[in-house]
Amino acid sequence: MSTNVPAQVGTPVEDVLTPCLLVDLDAYERNLDRMARYIDSQGLRHRAHAKTHKSPNIALQQMDRGAVGVCCQKVSEAEAMVNGGVRDVLVSNQVVNPHMIDRLAALAHQARVLVCVDDLGNVDQINAAAQAYGVTIEVLVEIDVGAGRCGVEPGQPAIPLAQRITEAPALRFAGLQAYQGKAQHVHDFEERKAKIDAAVAGVRETVDLLRQEGLECDIVAGAGTGTYTFEGESGVYNELQCGSYIFMDADYQRIRMADGRLIDDFENSLFIYSTVMSKTKAEKAICDAGLKAQSVDSGVAVVFGRDDVEYIGASDEHGVIKDPDNRLRLGEKLKLIPGHCDPTVNIYDWYVGVRNGRVECLWPITGRGMCL
Amino acid sequence: MSTNVPAQVGTPVEDVLTPCLLVDLDAYERNLDRMARYIDSQGLRHRAHAKTHKSPNIALQQMDRGAVGVCCQKVSEAEAMVNGGVRDVLVSNQVVNPHMIDRLAALAHQARVLVCVDDLGNVDQINAAAQAYGVTIEVLVEIDVGAGRCGVEPGQPAIPLAQRITEAPALRFAGLQAYQGKAQHVHDFEERKAKIDAAVAGVRETVDLLRQEGLECDIVAGAGTGTYTFEGESGVYNELQCGSYIFMDADYQRIRMADGRLIDDFENSLFIYSTVMSKTKAEKAICDAGLKAQSVDSGVAVVFGRDDVEYIGASDEHGVIKDPDNRLRLGEKLKLIPGHCDPTVNIYDWYVGVRNGRVECLWPITGRGMCL
Repeated sequence: MSTNVPAQVGTPVEDVLTPCLLVDLDAYERNLDRMARYIDSQGLRHRAHAKTHKSPNIALQQMDRGAVGVCCQKVSEAEAMVNGGVRDVLVSNQVVNPHMIDRLAALAHQARVLVCVDDLGNVDQINAAAQAYGVTIEVLVEIDVGAGRCGVEPGQPAIPLAQRITEAPALRFAGLQAYQGKAQHVHDFEERKAKIDAAVAGVRETVDLLRQEGLECDIVAGAGTGTYTFEGESGVYNELQCGSYIFMDADYQRIRMADGRLIDDFENSLFIYSTVMSKTKAEKAICDAGLKAQSVDSGVAVVFGRDDVEYIGASDEHGVIKDPDNRLRLGEKLKLIPGHCDPTVNIYDWYVGVRNGRVECLWPITGRGMCL
Repeated sequence: MSTNVPAQVGTPVEDVLTPCLLVDLDAYERNLDRMARYIDSQGLRHRAHAKTHKSPNIALQQMDRGAVGVCCQKVSEAEAMVNGGVRDVLVSNQVVNPHMIDRLAALAHQARVLVCVDDLGNVDQINAAAQAYGVTIEVLVEIDVGAGRCGVEPGQPAIPLAQRITEAPALRFAGLQAYQGKAQHVHDFEERKAKIDAAVAGVRETVDLLRQEGLECDIVAGAGTGTYTFEGESGVYNELQCGSYIFMDADYQRIRMADGRLIDDFENSLFIYSTVMSKTKAEKAICDAGLKAQSVDSGVAVVFGRDDVEYIGASDEHGVIKDPDNRLRLGEKLKLIPGHCDPTVNIYDWYVGVRNGRVECLWPITGRGMCL
């Protein structure tokens, strides 16, 4: 990590080495403030998703603005957060490997630790580890509200899991995890809303059934940047897990342009900073950010702030830029909006924070690659 | 890097933490041997591409089998190789940032250093840095033989570049870089061969023109795993740069199945090792390897050695496995063939080398993320 730092504090932005991840600190902080205001206005809790940024620096800034803690998707990611000073972590995912369950339990000596389950045997495993490590772990039942991944069906299937958690001496039943991951990037507003309406109905049914069994859900958690106002105003969700709002990305930008609603206020604050490294051809330039500088699962990067050039293709270490008027010069820098921020961030070791044209901070992405 | 080691030497393979990169050492070594035999049989040189593996351990094993050195795509990647004991590195790419040119020149105190150019001003920059650091840098002119990325057109445009290099006191003209990156993954044999035939014609023309100017090409370099026999038997290329042959990937496997020729002998030796983490649904299972465990630019991973299940979709931390007969069990391990090995490797910090069912070595991927 240390040999590949793309800048120093004070470096003028035009001298920052590329490719790297640039954060426009003003835009980023405005995004933080906007979300904090919304959460506050609705009387909700925010548990910001650290899978987006993987940086304790950012997690702590979210908590400075009122977030109760962070979500992580992996135990090793949670360890990175705790090692960076975060004291309240929900692993919003299943943990099934015995060694990783032990690491989860051990972590509960340093932080409040919560985790999700969708399997009875897994409840027993986590309880045994918590007992062995002398800790209490809070456990949410994950219900599948349409994402089609982990989680049991809403309603009745959640009951035996919640009961098993309640009966486990080293566990505490904390509520429901109900994230509709497939709704976030639906481009049509009504379709997106309909998916969350369906999720809300499933959550409400499950909460009511649990209540009939004497099981109260302190936490009803979910929501992402694409849909959070729906969950936030549903009357059933009380803890939102939005993460991407801090950076945004090209796909969220397309959603914003498609309907102009909902996520209108968040700004692109994260960029792949890139240099034109070859200009031998008419109407084309080659930049130094290719497949190893971005994840292209949601499309390639988009050039920020310029409509005269277009990023049209990526190979391992090269990006092809359409340059119809041959405006680009060798060595020229471009700011690229990642197609999808989360897996793109997971490639880099450093954020280069920039304000007023120079580097203000270098934040290590200590959760990078923490996939265990 | 150190907190996220997925195994220890001696760990049984079934206990290795996931997701991680598993190397089948027997298959990997057979791949090394096969390429070494081919190169030797043709009287060629092999300069193995380290952009595939980013590991000095692997680079040195390639050199043990006769490779003259490695190719890298980035100066920071070259530094990682030299720091790991490699003493002969070609940056098979342009380096245009002044600071990175300085680092390239500085590196020439520790290793033989070669680099590519496609711009006259860049020749002067590299010469100035080499002079400032008191070193000689060997320079290849890159010609674009169809990849449509960097490089000047074959033929006449290469001449002034070669002359400028020859005239530069701290540089040595070393020959031509002529890699047809767009041919490697063409599925049709004849089409793939036609692309290399065209490349060979351009190279031959350029070599001849340079010779008429009194400029000899010691190195005529290019070729990848998809096409290397064409370049190898062309009579003009003398240094092959294949990298992917050590691991192979799902796309190369599809090419092999499409024509059964050319790359028939190389075996899949690299796997994303993954665990079933949720099994709540009929005909489906969720594994722990998603977009942050692979690059999906050439399609998602393929389950190795099983035709009863299929990897059908990836989100950030989850993979969806079609399991029509519900054979998969919670906690079960799968070996996944990456869709594209190079950018997938660039996500991970460690190779877990396995032989006879247990971990034999852990190789740090010290070139990971070295994109500068």
